[in-house]
Amino acid sequence: MLVPYAELHATMRDILVREGMEPARADHCAQLFADSSRDGVPSHGLNRFGRFVAMIRSQMVDVQARPVRVASLGALERWDGRRGPGNLNAHACMARAIELAREHGVGAVGLGNSNHWMRGGNYGWQAADAGVIGICWSNTLPNVPAWGTTVPLIGNNPLIIAVPRAAGHVVLDIAMSQFSYGALAVHRMRGEELPVDGGYDESGRLTRDPAAIERTQRLLPIGFWKGSGLAILLDVVGATLSGGKATHDFSTVPEEESGQSQVFIAIDVTALGPAGETDAIVDGIVDALHAGAGAVGEAARYPGEHTLEVRRKSLAEGVSVNDDVWREVRTL
Amino acid sequence: MLVPYAELHATMRDILVREGMEPARADHCAQLFADSSRDGVPSHGLNRFGRFVAMIRSQMVDVQARPVRVASLGALERWDGRRGPGNLNAHACMARAIELAREHGVGAVGLGNSNHWMRGGNYGWQAADAGVIGICWSNTLPNVPAWGTTVPLIGNNPLIIAVPRAAGHVVLDIAMSQFSYGALAVHRMRGEELPVDGGYDESGRLTRDPAAIERTQRLLPIGFWKGSGLAILLDVVGATLSGGKATHDFSTVPEEESGQSQVFIAIDVTALGPAGETDAIVDGIVDALHAGAGAVGEAARYPGEHTLEVRRKSLAEGVSVNDDVWREVRTL
Repeated sequence: MLVPYAELHATMRDILVREGMEPARADHCAQLFADSSRDGVPSHGLNRFGRFVAMIRSQMVDVQARPVRVASLGALERWDGRRGPGNLNAHACMARAIELAREHGVGAVGLGNSNHWMRGGNYGWQAADAGVIGICWSNTLPNVPAWGTTVPLIGNNPLIIAVPRAAGHVVLDIAMSQFSYGALAVHRMRGEELPVDGGYDESGRLTRDPAAIERTQRLLPIGFWKGSGLAILLDVVGATLSGGKATHDFSTVPEEESGQSQVFIAIDVTALGPAGETDAIVDGIVDALHAGAGAVGEAARYPGEHTLEVRRKSLAEGVSVNDDVWREVRTL
Repeated sequence: MLVPYAELHATMRDILVREGMEPARADHCAQLFADSSRDGVPSHGLNRFGRFVAMIRSQMVDVQARPVRVASLGALERWDGRRGPGNLNAHACMARAIELAREHGVGAVGLGNSNHWMRGGNYGWQAADAGVIGICWSNTLPNVPAWGTTVPLIGNNPLIIAVPRAAGHVVLDIAMSQFSYGALAVHRMRGEELPVDGGYDESGRLTRDPAAIERTQRLLPIGFWKGSGLAILLDVVGATLSGGKATHDFSTVPEEESGQSQVFIAIDVTALGPAGETDAIVDGIVDALHAGAGAVGEAARYPGEHTLEVRRKSLAEGVSVNDDVWREVRTL
């Protein structure tokens, strides 16, 4: 069904206030959940809200905790998330990276001891809305086999890169596995194969069968050895900058996944050239992509293009929600 | 055959001096080529040297040109490579990013109007050898179809992330296509299939046949739509920070690929915690990877591990070179 954005936001806000979160923070935290659903990522929006409330109740997430700076050198800072709400911590640290970028051209923040930041793309849009380039990533519990092994040793560590543009920001938000477990479940329940190979079956062969991959837990990293290596490096940089947990330090129980290490980098790209230069360059890249595909009768989209379409539709017609999930959330 | 590193280095240095490069710069430029072959990447070492000399002779590369800073804000700078030797320009800009990181914690340099940097991994090792995290990437001419199209519209833009570690740096060096054209040729000449799908054949099916992909020019981006999106973002950030060329601005003739845009980011990770903290964290990640794989009778390597093995062997026994290439280089 379709729910007005304001109702979605207010419903989650009121629940968080009842869970003890300060009203202004509850409003912001609920907004970040609502924004995810609004932008077509319900897996880290409304659908994830119930588990978030459960983690508040099990004290994995401390609704009172605010992040604090624990070390710094100029444009580089380390923050301790104190196991507070992951999306508020992440938003605060991207905001700090943006401040640092305005002063120093570039700013970098390592955040440790936080919690799941839900949809990482939110912090990319945040940076681009502020007119700066945003780059951020998080580590996760071990949920993907490293290349060369059959057991989960690396995280599917999401990576976000966002560049501001007047006509629509360019925002990439990708995890290091070809598909998430959420995506496997969606395909399985629809009785559909994956569009491309997503992992290995019991006999060690690449497969598009989502149920087989759920059984083996052998998700495929993007680009095989390449995505496996990239996941390792994102973990290494995140853990060293934050001084916090690495993937191997996490519990493998999803409900106990707490203490994530994250990195937030902001770059004030418009400081380097004449006014309008960045827009002209990015417009040129987007136009060349559209024109090149169109010239052979095909279509290509830039990262973030689809998000804006979904967002417009959600705000005009209401945010699409799963009926069962919406009913459950309203009983929280 | 095997050639002593010093002989490989001196041979290329002497040729560059004859091409008009200042001796100290020729020595450094040749060293970067020799280092690539030494580390097991001859495609961007000795094998690429002939084309580099040809581009000097065709005046695509200006042996006299040195990069200059054209704009800055604190820890962020834009440099103009003035079409000088790509590897010297890249090394100079990573060195500058390292200086900025020592002063500001983090430093970022956008380099435009440069040339092919050859092996990007060199600049990652450079940063890690200096004790800082290095992140860098380059754009390229269009050589990979964007997701949704069958024609080359994006670059295979290599991305490097390096983290220092006393027991061996962790260094990732990956291009955005699953295989390079060089790798396709190697497999074709050996009569071997690719180990995984590398692109599309004439009927639009994924294939491991290198010759079929060479015919269609439909290289596969890593992770399908994900690597395609990542390649676009690396191009967007590179072009906007440098104010230089984007992938669509390049000639599609490989011998005329000039004017690359590149990004160099350095982070002084050791500034944030107690002495030895970074090493302890990275050692923990490497050890967990080795132990986790070993526990199920398998083997996994961290990015950079194989490089060190090849380097030790090359320095002990000589650098492996292709006989024909080595003969040709010595006639230059």
